[in-house]
Amino acid sequence: MTLSVEDTRMIYQDGPQKKARIGTFDFETGARLKNVEIAFETWGTLNEAGTNAVLIVHALTGDTHVTASPENPAPGWWEQLVGPGKPIDTNHWFVVAPNILGGCYGSTGPASLDEYGLPYGSRFPFVTIRDSVRAEAAMADLLGIKSFKAVIGGSLGGARALEWAATYPDRVEGAAVIASNAYTTAEQIAFSQAQINAIQLDPLYNDGDYYAGAAPTGGLGIARRIAHITYRSEGELGGRFGRKHQEAENPLGWPQRRQGRYQIESYLDYQAAKLVDRFDANSYVSITESLMTHDVGRDRGGLANALAQVKAKMFICAVTSDRLFFPEQSEELANLLPEVEGQPVPVHMIDSPIGHDGFLTQIEQVADAMVETLGLQAE
Amino acid sequence: MTLSVEDTRMIYQDGPQKKARIGTFDFETGARLKNVEIAFETWGTLNEAGTNAVLIVHALTGDTHVTASPENPAPGWWEQLVGPGKPIDTNHWFVVAPNILGGCYGSTGPASLDEYGLPYGSRFPFVTIRDSVRAEAAMADLLGIKSFKAVIGGSLGGARALEWAATYPDRVEGAAVIASNAYTTAEQIAFSQAQINAIQLDPLYNDGDYYAGAAPTGGLGIARRIAHITYRSEGELGGRFGRKHQEAENPLGWPQRRQGRYQIESYLDYQAAKLVDRFDANSYVSITESLMTHDVGRDRGGLANALAQVKAKMFICAVTSDRLFFPEQSEELANLLPEVEGQPVPVHMIDSPIGHDGFLTQIEQVADAMVETLGLQAE
Repeated sequence: MTLSVEDTRMIYQDGPQKKARIGTFDFETGARLKNVEIAFETWGTLNEAGTNAVLIVHALTGDTHVTASPENPAPGWWEQLVGPGKPIDTNHWFVVAPNILGGCYGSTGPASLDEYGLPYGSRFPFVTIRDSVRAEAAMADLLGIKSFKAVIGGSLGGARALEWAATYPDRVEGAAVIASNAYTTAEQIAFSQAQINAIQLDPLYNDGDYYAGAAPTGGLGIARRIAHITYRSEGELGGRFGRKHQEAENPLGWPQRRQGRYQIESYLDYQAAKLVDRFDANSYVSITESLMTHDVGRDRGGLANALAQVKAKMFICAVTSDRLFFPEQSEELANLLPEVEGQPVPVHMIDSPIGHDGFLTQIEQVADAMVETLGLQAE
Repeated sequence: MTLSVEDTRMIYQDGPQKKARIGTFDFETGARLKNVEIAFETWGTLNEAGTNAVLIVHALTGDTHVTASPENPAPGWWEQLVGPGKPIDTNHWFVVAPNILGGCYGSTGPASLDEYGLPYGSRFPFVTIRDSVRAEAAMADLLGIKSFKAVIGGSLGGARALEWAATYPDRVEGAAVIASNAYTTAEQIAFSQAQINAIQLDPLYNDGDYYAGAAPTGGLGIARRIAHITYRSEGELGGRFGRKHQEAENPLGWPQRRQGRYQIESYLDYQAAKLVDRFDANSYVSITESLMTHDVGRDRGGLANALAQVKAKMFICAVTSDRLFFPEQSEELANLLPEVEGQPVPVHMIDSPIGHDGFLTQIEQVADAMVETLGLQAE
């Protein structure tokens, strides 16, 4: 088969990112797109044997910027974990961080242009977690990476890391599944549905075809508010904000309709405003839908069978106060993995009162254990 | 001062409900409405001394129909607790159940007509929990009830019951605060905000003035989905639905965009559809905003001071798996109430895996203890 010009496979630099043009991509549910690209950043240098690569996969609204680099010196989202002299030492390891298929940080997504120069919008196909992993494997092929020393992710990234280990047992030597689980639960699907519905309710959403006009920031902002509540513990919100109101915004300070805001409302308004400035609503829907598909046991003879066949060294970690990905879900996952030297796979704990987001803010607590489990010492 | 014709205070029958026309009402934040009415149902007979009245106050989307009656034989929402021969025996007690001010089950609310025959809509004032309690006290005045043997409520109703005890120490002999707390927490405010925002985002909402057109069922449905998740425990949702999909609706069964539904999505769609059929969106906003104002310590020298001055016998109860009103919040409330015979007020537990809604479905677990604590035996 001859590749068409459009389907040339290649890697090229695009600002601080690189792009892997992986060509035509067949989605799990049957859709097909040409010219699919996976954007990524890298740190360090791939050795000649191609044996020092580490893949880091981001969470729902994450991007490729895991840590600072000469091309982009801004701090990344796991700055304390990755970099020269850091626990995952980029003087030794070649770290690759792709943007998920369907995302809005450089990879092909709903805002990308089709071959006629029009944004896909409502025509962008449904992306499963497994699609995202296959697309990243095609990126790895172009990079000449036959096997990753480790695939590491938290939250949605943890789901991606686990799918990597299950889909490509011979290409993943170790995997870290942090604040995540073996399958998306009913509650996670439920919170996802409410978020997607809110975006779709926004009259500016226009069924996903809004790129010629204003973005549906109202709906995306509500989705973010819901999500952010689930990323933080009840105690964290109570301790920080309680029922204090904004200085000049006492909700009881106006007759007739309610005006004013409690501090927690102002905080969530701020979180929503920050996200809608940086994120595409269709990508938010796409990635949320991907998360809903997460089920490592699907078409693999069930959960226990799928996990029993994992070959990679596994590092499992939860956040003590996480109420979106409960520690019990990490336990369930760990207990179904093959034992290591006669011992069950342990669940490492990030001891944090803030909830799920502890996997981002306090990853340093488990960095040494992760490095040791996955053999990521800078030799 | 002479009351205008419109402000005549009276009680009249209106189908299975009664209405207390309480006249002009001054809201806490300064608004004023004429012709305010509080709808209610009653069971049993008020004795001549007026000493056998029990007030039962509903939760967020509750109504006046606590239990079956000759006028309305349909089962009520606390059917197992209230009725002839039930723990709260209406052969002995005169039970009164009002609809909250701002509601849509008979009391004056946003859908009510003003003196020109137009629905209030966006002009309906902000109702605080304390407003709702004062309006109910005006209803009690018209009924000739000087003091209630008990005021009983769960969730928002628990907040109302506690406010009754704090506002009218000489009119409340006992109060049951079930699956509730002393003040709305940051997290509860946060979930409330997301729900209100979803309703307001619905283009049919029209800032609250939608009564001439279609109702904003999309926004209200999202609010209900969010709320319903918080009413149920993670384990309840996981155990009932897991990640099963609807029989003929495998979300992975369509190419291109995601279609199909997981069972949990279908379940929440159903819960949303049921609510939008029976509830007014403006009332949902109004009552949710009332809940956000709940703070028994406000303008009473703080929480500890307000609770130390409660004179009523207090029955405090939580649901073991509640993750909206956590049992710890009932503990905090109980610990600040005056001791009874040298002992702290206990927190009774409804042992249920389903979450917050256990206060409705499994109230019989604590009925005897409630009756005993509040002296509600049928003597």
